[in-house]
Amino acid sequence: MNPATTPDPPYYAVIFTSRQTGDESNAYSETASRMKELAGRQAGFLGIESAHGDDGLGITVSYWESPEAIHAWKANEKHLAAQQKGRAVWYDRFELRIAKVERAYGMTRDSA
Amino acid sequence: MNPATTPDPPYYAVIFTSRQTGDESNAYSETASRMKELAGRQAGFLGIESAHGDDGLGITVSYWESPEAIHAWKANEKHLAAQQKGRAVWYDRFELRIAKVERAYGMTRDSA
Repeated sequence: MNPATTPDPPYYAVIFTSRQTGDESNAYSETASRMKELAGRQAGFLGIESAHGDDGLGITVSYWESPEAIHAWKANEKHLAAQQKGRAVWYDRFELRIAKVERAYGMTRDSA
Repeated sequence: MNPATTPDPPYYAVIFTSRQTGDESNAYSETASRMKELAGRQAGFLGIESAHGDDGLGITVSYWESPEAIHAWKANEKHLAAQQKGRAVWYDRFELRIAKVERAYGMTRDSA
């Protein structure tokens, strides 16, 4: 996975940081892949980045055109079911933050 | 590492997403640890979260009280030297986004 390619700001970010229980009995990774794919088809979706470290911390940042797009994704029926399982089974702890991206810059190595 | 414990919004997030070259000859991981520790001693620092996936994508999110605190950290002399090495040696690509956290919520499992 690469850093997401996003338009010039302003746009919105959902920063989701989690620690898992280790109980993957309800097909965590399949659901996570399906949710990424489904998010990618939502109106106003701009990109997603995800990394899970060996120490159990997971960070997923998704980017959106507007707060309305984020709200619609939160209320998506299949996503609601996944959120429910997340609270019930998969996550020991999570923090979700909604932020307005005001500035951005980046670098791509010429040889890359 | 756990999700950062942050105050009620508003506050600011620096979302740094990177892909490494794989060249760690200039002591990447030591510098990364030192920078985390140094950031933690800056005025206005609220917390930091970091995860590096097996696929080479790294995400570090740091949280700050104000844009001024972010600016002061960016201009820190030791941090400037590390940024220089990042561009010259460590990163094939990175994206850095500065965002204002407007809403946040979380969950901690009772049994955790």
